[in-house]
Amino acid sequence: ELFDGRQADANLAEAIMTTDTIKKECAVRVRLSDGTLVYIGAICKGSGMIAPHMKVLHGTTLSLITTDANISPAFRAKWQQILDGSLNMVSVDGDQSTNDTSILLANGMAGGKCADDDPEFYNALNFVMTKIARTVASDGEGATKLIEVRVSGAETKEDANKLIKTIINSPLVKSAIFGSDPNYGRIMMALGNSGCKFNLEDVRLTIKGGDMEVPILDSGAPVFQDERSVEVVRMAMDNKEVCIIVDLGAGNESSVGWGCDLTYDYVRINAEYAT
Amino acid sequence: ELFDGRQADANLAEAIMTTDTIKKECAVRVRLSDGTLVYIGAICKGSGMIAPHMKVLHGTTLSLITTDANISPAFRAKWQQILDGSLNMVSVDGDQSTNDTSILLANGMAGGKCADDDPEFYNALNFVMTKIARTVASDGEGATKLIEVRVSGAETKEDANKLIKTIINSPLVKSAIFGSDPNYGRIMMALGNSGCKFNLEDVRLTIKGGDMEVPILDSGAPVFQDERSVEVVRMAMDNKEVCIIVDLGAGNESSVGWGCDLTYDYVRINAEYAT
Repeated sequence: ELFDGRQADANLAEAIMTTDTIKKECAVRVRLSDGTLVYIGAICKGSGMIAPHMKVLHGTTLSLITTDANISPAFRAKWQQILDGSLNMVSVDGDQSTNDTSILLANGMAGGKCADDDPEFYNALNFVMTKIARTVASDGEGATKLIEVRVSGAETKEDANKLIKTIINSPLVKSAIFGSDPNYGRIMMALGNSGCKFNLEDVRLTIKGGDMEVPILDSGAPVFQDERSVEVVRMAMDNKEVCIIVDLGAGNESSVGWGCDLTYDYVRINAEYAT
Repeated sequence: ELFDGRQADANLAEAIMTTDTIKKECAVRVRLSDGTLVYIGAICKGSGMIAPHMKVLHGTTLSLITTDANISPAFRAKWQQILDGSLNMVSVDGDQSTNDTSILLANGMAGGKCADDDPEFYNALNFVMTKIARTVASDGEGATKLIEVRVSGAETKEDANKLIKTIINSPLVKSAIFGSDPNYGRIMMALGNSGCKFNLEDVRLTIKGGDMEVPILDSGAPVFQDERSVEVVRMAMDNKEVCIIVDLGAGNESSVGWGCDLTYDYVRINAEYAT
């Protein structure tokens, strides 16, 4: 027997959970350019084996997004853009699953003009998907912290994305963030390892945690000098959300991605998983 | 003051250790094709941030190999081949360091003909470097097990190497091996994730631990059927050395690489490392 309503929605969001500890849902209401009021709702699951590279119509994170907006099949290209900037920029462990799926269902019941090219709809859907992406990262298996990586000043968008994935997939960076250890050398290792173009002399690195934003490197050189300033970085890192901000100084492209820390619990969950 | 002799050699091998728990050294004596007796000795350090891609004359694993063989600068190409099949096929955490270095010193004091093209010398040096590579992998930070991955039947050598790196860098595969969990789905995930060419119907997967060699997949389908055979795989995995053997059935190329399990101690070492 099928139900509808809030309780049924919540039941579905709960039913798809596996090692998830947070129910992932998000809904917005947005007024489109032509005055139509539109709803967008989303549920999602995913905690381990998370490094999706979903292509539209081809895609273990599961997410289901519903809206009453009036959109056409031509919205696919924009849906791909939104996926590429949200769930496809999440990596819990770099291990891409074989069956990541994200489904956008639109029934057009809100009426109004076709919303394919309406920036209000795009921004609202992008807001929902970014929220869902952050929640998936923060609920990565064993995670105690959400890591956000913001790269700017990249020569190409590909460079920015490559660097973000190298940083959020580095077990050394992830462990350092778990331990609130201001080991910026590991972030610089990831820069060099990523293969993206930059001159060390142009690199700026900032770590943000809670309300504290602490400059680490300027023009490629360490800003902090003594043990006391190391303590400040440590305090910034001792937050549920740690943001690594890199300006490569090599161009005008930027991107954002999300991951989580590597903890004892990640090892426990995945070493003791009953096959 | 500088010394020579066994004690001085052992001191040097110990002096370069950081988070290493095993002193990495190896020496062989080999009779070359022209009858010359040659010695090759090697020391090495490296435990975390280990995923070297060393190029000759450009290369945090440090290794120093000495020999009295008579070789010329032209041996470089072969030295690169040996590095590519030994240390460059090791990955503890996928995090490539900024300063991996391997130095081969030859003083020619053994005399004899130039040994550049002597297969006896090549094989002896390759033996030493493979031994060193395996020791580095088995002493990865926090490691309790050495993982050897053997891929055969690949279309290209690049495919074989790409698959090996994807398997040994997968946190899910590494955690499963730590927990002796016969979760072959994670190995198959890595196959799909690697981007290498294969048909699932042609894939054979075997897990070897100690003297037990257990077929897991044949023609892409699971060989074992019941809980008892799962226990056999678990017993094979409960060994200091676990070997994952994949035949892709897609070609004639093969390769071998080494990694280690992902353990609580890896997280502890890298979360508590004092910057």
